[in-house]
Amino acid sequence: MASVDVPQANIGVVGLAVMGSNLARNLASREGNTVAVFNRTAAKTDELVAEHPEAGFIATKSYQEFADRLSTPRTAIIMVQAGRGTDAVIDELVKVFEPGDIIVDGGNANFRDTIAREKRISETGIHFVGTGISGGEEGALNGPSIMPGGSDESWQTLGPIFRSIAAVAEGEPCVTHIGHDGAGHFVKMVHNGIEYADMQLIAEGYDLIRRGTGKSPAEIADVFDEWNRGELESYLIEITAQVLRQVDAATGKPLVDVILDQAGAKGTGAWTVQNALDLGVPVSGIAEAVFARSLSSKPGQRAVAQKVLPGPSDRWTIESPEDFIEDVRQALYASKVIAYSQGFDEIIAGAEEFGWDIDKGDIAKIWRGGCIIRARFLNRITDAYAADPDLTSLVTAPFFVDVVTAAQGPWRRVVSMAAHAGVPAPAFASSLAYYDGLRADRLPAALIQGQRDFFGAHTYKRVDKDGIFHTLWSGDRSEVESEGSSH
Amino acid sequence: MASVDVPQANIGVVGLAVMGSNLARNLASREGNTVAVFNRTAAKTDELVAEHPEAGFIATKSYQEFADRLSTPRTAIIMVQAGRGTDAVIDELVKVFEPGDIIVDGGNANFRDTIAREKRISETGIHFVGTGISGGEEGALNGPSIMPGGSDESWQTLGPIFRSIAAVAEGEPCVTHIGHDGAGHFVKMVHNGIEYADMQLIAEGYDLIRRGTGKSPAEIADVFDEWNRGELESYLIEITAQVLRQVDAATGKPLVDVILDQAGAKGTGAWTVQNALDLGVPVSGIAEAVFARSLSSKPGQRAVAQKVLPGPSDRWTIESPEDFIEDVRQALYASKVIAYSQGFDEIIAGAEEFGWDIDKGDIAKIWRGGCIIRARFLNRITDAYAADPDLTSLVTAPFFVDVVTAAQGPWRRVVSMAAHAGVPAPAFASSLAYYDGLRADRLPAALIQGQRDFFGAHTYKRVDKDGIFHTLWSGDRSEVESEGSSH
Repeated sequence: MASVDVPQANIGVVGLAVMGSNLARNLASREGNTVAVFNRTAAKTDELVAEHPEAGFIATKSYQEFADRLSTPRTAIIMVQAGRGTDAVIDELVKVFEPGDIIVDGGNANFRDTIAREKRISETGIHFVGTGISGGEEGALNGPSIMPGGSDESWQTLGPIFRSIAAVAEGEPCVTHIGHDGAGHFVKMVHNGIEYADMQLIAEGYDLIRRGTGKSPAEIADVFDEWNRGELESYLIEITAQVLRQVDAATGKPLVDVILDQAGAKGTGAWTVQNALDLGVPVSGIAEAVFARSLSSKPGQRAVAQKVLPGPSDRWTIESPEDFIEDVRQALYASKVIAYSQGFDEIIAGAEEFGWDIDKGDIAKIWRGGCIIRARFLNRITDAYAADPDLTSLVTAPFFVDVVTAAQGPWRRVVSMAAHAGVPAPAFASSLAYYDGLRADRLPAALIQGQRDFFGAHTYKRVDKDGIFHTLWSGDRSEVESEGSSH
Repeated sequence: MASVDVPQANIGVVGLAVMGSNLARNLASREGNTVAVFNRTAAKTDELVAEHPEAGFIATKSYQEFADRLSTPRTAIIMVQAGRGTDAVIDELVKVFEPGDIIVDGGNANFRDTIAREKRISETGIHFVGTGISGGEEGALNGPSIMPGGSDESWQTLGPIFRSIAAVAEGEPCVTHIGHDGAGHFVKMVHNGIEYADMQLIAEGYDLIRRGTGKSPAEIADVFDEWNRGELESYLIEITAQVLRQVDAATGKPLVDVILDQAGAKGTGAWTVQNALDLGVPVSGIAEAVFARSLSSKPGQRAVAQKVLPGPSDRWTIESPEDFIEDVRQALYASKVIAYSQGFDEIIAGAEEFGWDIDKGDIAKIWRGGCIIRARFLNRITDAYAADPDLTSLVTAPFFVDVVTAAQGPWRRVVSMAAHAGVPAPAFASSLAYYDGLRADRLPAALIQGQRDFFGAHTYKRVDKDGIFHTLWSGDRSEVESEGSSH
């Protein structure tokens, strides 16, 4: 232990790349916090400390020194590349920390890794808290949305610290204890999946308006600014206007026209879809958004396809650009409701599968500030779950029923027009098809069950009585009751 | 070793449930084969042997006896539940088999498990051959489509045996050595994913025709029979007609109307999508098919949604049922081409990732008979890859360009009409959106890259020069060249 006259920190940060140093500066700026910092390359530590004397950082040059300079229970936030980097840091911290201390992983870890790490580390008596942190570099510095998992005991210590640095929305800090072990990283993953859908929907809306009306990116920026004053008010709509208004200095063209149209991805969108498939939750809007990015990143296929695959022969005519733009806005709003409804279905299924006690309304609340998908309409999600915690689908809450009731006409027109005009709108179209599937009185899934019974004796259930049945398709085609699915 | 006067088998089958016993009977029916059989519950072995004296089975009651009765190199096909059941059997066989012997797993194993098993077992000198077998119970008995992975050496022994029992299409047995280790199970997985899409497209087509024209299931069966005499000729179209024509004895109603409309799934469809996400391949049509099944199996959500979510207010009018049905046929054909194109993209990406030398044309060939997706148009896929083994997308092969050129008008009308009418057609809509995305001159992915650079400094590339760039969005908004993505 350090002697009493050496100043002690109440929180430490390991990993001082942009996210880590911004989070450390955020922590240091809040009253009552003294922040110890450590980085594998010491030069980075020195640089941060020199550049930000106002932060009063305690620079440390070894894990031992880092541990010595933290008051107990020690609390350290790891901000390094997810995966092996995280494990390497954890291994070192476990050597110098003591039972009761807390290790927070603030990276974009896979929640299954977080569950495994929590299990392993909790055996040492040290708490491990996988924590989703959203808001990018600026959020880390000025106030992110924070989604911690981990034990109730660690939350006692972390709660006040996280509340001090989180974004504040309508007076409330954007942090809550999501649930045990991997719950925080799971919810952060779904957050990112929704973000993919949100961005794809905006991109489709922009593309339709541009191709349909011939407006310039700057003119469409005005449309997004206008939208940002209404129901769609959100960070992503706001920054879309700014991106569309940006002019490239080198060419004088709109920046969006000189950016290569191949979208990258960091994996959390794909994880969201992969886990939804494991959980049996249809997240079609998110999947289409992920696939749209991967399609865009196939220049070889696209170059050939562009040459040989024909588009529609009809010319596309928009009678009233204003009416069309309003249709697109409504389609975007309704599709966005579907993306959130699917995302919350995944959170509910995940909580059920992994035994987490998750308050859905609180999730929507802490996404109102700091994070990329922050939006006015998240309040309506909180309201919906407050009014009915057992809501079966978000889209069936009264407020959202009103939204889709108003929007369905425009939504149908936009999807239909995109199909006729040859403008790809996979997320709009998929969201509408999901909506119509959800509300259908009968689905042709019955035919699929018939096919499966025909070729694989997979059996079927009946609408009029309990039991499992099979038709003897290769025999006399009578129906027999089965004791279970044959395979 | 057994003494010379005890008859020996050249092939053995372990696991005598329906698939296993049918495959054993198929093997026994071919000249030159003597089949040893073994089942954990000996009663099942006795039953099979008693019921099928014509097969000349050698019944065995222990793994040792099973091994003793096989001539060397011993060859055994395991037909048990995928997962732990498979491992348990493998463990026993490894104890009694010798180097050079061959263990075939004919179940629906995950190809990653197959890769791991092959690696583990090959250390003993025994060959392990993960083999996809498609065609259900009837295929197993009369001739399946067989997709073996494993070593070249094991293929020397297995090739003649598999060729003897496989389905025959246009004179050629439906089996080929797909590639090493897990290649067979990988290709079988994608086969199943395509099967999901194919079934969903048929289901959507049926639903649209029924709702659009008011025709009865029996009348729509006639439509499918008609389709089965043309370009769409395939097993799934054929059995769809039979399922639609089936009348429920208990109620006198069409069977499809008394089957509960909640479709089940066994996991290979989800695997196909999950692996496509890992490989960065957009398989949106397959994903929509998997999600449509999971949506159908949410009766709680559907019951509420049906009550509160409104459909379109316009009435749906079809002017000419004949024209509409022809439009649906064309939309189905074009969407099916997309499903195959996406599936083959996944096979190509998988081969690249896992180092398999896969002949795409041969895959299409061996799917022409025995398996669930057998169809006339698979010949056109073989032709396409024969003409151009490096084809970038199946849909851009000349034959398929002609198909989509003819179909795109009807396809657009059908997707548009489904959106207006409120009939869910997620796979039709998704396939069309993929088509329009693939052929687009510019995608709004450029805007997504701009957004990502804005909130996360993820950087972007430019259309007019090499390099990686970032706009200082929080600064003076000038552009800087970056050394790489910041995170």
